[in-house]
Amino acid sequence: MENGKSSGDKSSLKPIRCKAAVCRKAGEPLVMEEILVAPPQPFEVRIRIICTALCHSDITFWKLQVPPACFPRILGHEAIGVVESVGENVTEVVVGDTVLPTFMADCGDCVDCKSPKSNLCSRLPFKVSPWMPRYENSSRFTDLNGNTLFHFLNVSSFSEYTVLDVAHVVKIDSSIPPSRACLLSCGVSTGVGAAWKTAQVEQGSTVVIFGLGSIGLAVAEGARLCGASRIIGVDINPTKFEVGQKFGITEFVNSMTCENKRLSEVINEMTGGGADYCFECVGSSSLVQEAYACCRKGWGKTITLGVDKPGSEICLNSSDVLHNGKTLIGSLFGGLKAKSHIPLLLKRYMSKELELDKFVTHEMKFEDINDAFQLLLDGRCIRCVLWMG
Amino acid sequence: MENGKSSGDKSSLKPIRCKAAVCRKAGEPLVMEEILVAPPQPFEVRIRIICTALCHSDITFWKLQVPPACFPRILGHEAIGVVESVGENVTEVVVGDTVLPTFMADCGDCVDCKSPKSNLCSRLPFKVSPWMPRYENSSRFTDLNGNTLFHFLNVSSFSEYTVLDVAHVVKIDSSIPPSRACLLSCGVSTGVGAAWKTAQVEQGSTVVIFGLGSIGLAVAEGARLCGASRIIGVDINPTKFEVGQKFGITEFVNSMTCENKRLSEVINEMTGGGADYCFECVGSSSLVQEAYACCRKGWGKTITLGVDKPGSEICLNSSDVLHNGKTLIGSLFGGLKAKSHIPLLLKRYMSKELELDKFVTHEMKFEDINDAFQLLLDGRCIRCVLWMG
Ligand SMILES: [Zn+2]
Ligand SMILES: [Zn+2]
Ligand SMILES: [Zn+2]
Ligand SMILES: [Zn+2]
Repeated sequence: MENGKSSGDKSSLKPIRCKAAVCRKAGEPLVMEEILVAPPQPFEVRIRIICTALCHSDITFWKLQVPPACFPRILGHEAIGVVESVGENVTEVVVGDTVLPTFMADCGDCVDCKSPKSNLCSRLPFKVSPWMPRYENSSRFTDLNGNTLFHFLNVSSFSEYTVLDVAHVVKIDSSIPPSRACLLSCGVSTGVGAAWKTAQVEQGSTVVIFGLGSIGLAVAEGARLCGASRIIGVDINPTKFEVGQKFGITEFVNSMTCENKRLSEVINEMTGGGADYCFECVGSSSLVQEAYACCRKGWGKTITLGVDKPGSEICLNSSDVLHNGKTLIGSLFGGLKAKSHIPLLLKRYMSKELELDKFVTHEMKFEDINDAFQLLLDGRCIRCVLWMG
Repeated sequence: MENGKSSGDKSSLKPIRCKAAVCRKAGEPLVMEEILVAPPQPFEVRIRIICTALCHSDITFWKLQVPPACFPRILGHEAIGVVESVGENVTEVVVGDTVLPTFMADCGDCVDCKSPKSNLCSRLPFKVSPWMPRYENSSRFTDLNGNTLFHFLNVSSFSEYTVLDVAHVVKIDSSIPPSRACLLSCGVSTGVGAAWKTAQVEQGSTVVIFGLGSIGLAVAEGARLCGASRIIGVDINPTKFEVGQKFGITEFVNSMTCENKRLSEVINEMTGGGADYCFECVGSSSLVQEAYACCRKGWGKTITLGVDKPGSEICLNSSDVLHNGKTLIGSLFGGLKAKSHIPLLLKRYMSKELELDKFVTHEMKFEDINDAFQLLLDGRCIRCVLWMG
């Protein structure tokens, strides 16, 4: 099983001292400090991050004061890197490989990973854990005082080096521009996948997207790729329409100015009875209900991508459910199987079908990460890519 | 457009005087009386009923005291008949054709009827109306005092003659035994279709059916036809298991005796993480929620067939919806397009794949319809077929 040639002598692997942006307290600026990154354990790889982007979940867990938040923690989960060393039993990648980390595992071996119908690995199920997925209560990060630093979403990319389970990395072609490839590590994959895999948007169909943040724009890009002919964007911020047009959005509805009509009435009028696909990207259960009401009877699908408050419920009228033949489904990581679908999306980027460039509104040095946080908080960026030194 | 040869001279058509079982008051015995059945209007056919079966919706609307209930009314909607005369513009059937009435229209011409994805005709949408579907506020039935008798579910088969819109009849092969074919007019089609068309149950899959009434048993028959390997029946009445075995049910769970466990815990244990398909056939929103919890993450589908009280809601935890990739969908008339799918099911009956005989537990004379109601009320029959004179 061991791949001595490429991984070197594991026993000789040493901790690496490097820079990381540590989140020490909820909502406070990240602290750029030196940390120690332990060698990879069995089934783990240690990678050098090339660049990392900021995603809204980073902001959510930076702000959150209660569990599953915990501190001090190394956030970041949308990135690209190069394998620096591998632990025992790792045969899938070798030192020097370019990889994308993914918060969703793809072990390739469990019943879910083997089924074409699921992307929810059951060996390493999705969990916002502070630990490495196979070794509970164990972290690879310590600060210089010897204190544990927690992991985030199985990635923790706000560090020059990080350790991941091999089920959480996808080997990719090293010739792809890193600042574009890294977007497929989380956000763009989530949105494009929701249209492509979860909803299976058909040529010529009508799509409504609720919430034109980066995920909503990625859904639009996915719907455009699938050949949707009408892509209606809904947001409370009218400036999003201008941005949205670059992503294939053909019409805009400002949900704040529906003139005494329900949003679903407006959409039903525009579409002559409802859209084929409705995507909720805000994380509001009541908006999911409205999206369901905007779906065409007979075949409409409502896809939820947004994360609402814990305990919130989506309530649908039971006779509506019975009589209208609509589908409700959730989409986590766009329904994508990381290791088989991300390379396909990268191919479509290289063939100039999938457009990634337009997502990158800012590029900065890793050191300026707190400025990047502010940009995202102010809604002034779609994706900000941070380059390591 | 006119089909003079087969339908005769329309202007010469006269009202027919015949026997019907009239529901004059909620919950009271039907009154067998003479009524007048007007000639068919344009797009309508008048048929002579050969036999009719009793379905639970007949009981529901017999008991119901408030709208959409209304009296006096001719109930009945699962039947088979022969075309006696046709109105103008009817070219699809001719006098003498054997037909199944269906409460769901299939006009063949609207966007839904033309789409392979919908069975919800938008020209004549499903409605529990007391009138003929194209001519509102108009009935073809009067009693001998000249008072209007209301229609039911576009069929009204508790009468020797009835009038239907041509979109509500399916021409079938006259050689099929009428007491079997009539079951496909509503109940068996609804259940079998839910497994076959709405859920698209796959070979080797695991199915759970909540409620083993006639619809639940028809779902089991459909799941068996689709090659499901485990069909788990859930009911509060343990005698249903014996009956259910004839319909392919392989295991039984008595939801009344789950020993302090939630039903979903029991099912999740039995299935090692949830069933591929869960069918709610009782009409309880809370049971739909439980069914959803019994579905396998990653690909499980929950299909609702039961009618709950008006205004009742199905509430799902939003993070459950997002994280588990499960599907919720309603099934009306089993997702079947009446005119194309019923003939396919009849073929499978003739080739001895679809077993209809076992559904018919009783056969009686039409005159004894009140005894048949009592049998159904007592839970002593699956299907009772009533033969006209
Ligand atoms: Zn993300
Ligand atoms: Zn797996
Ligand atoms: Zn029925
Ligand atoms: Zn139609």
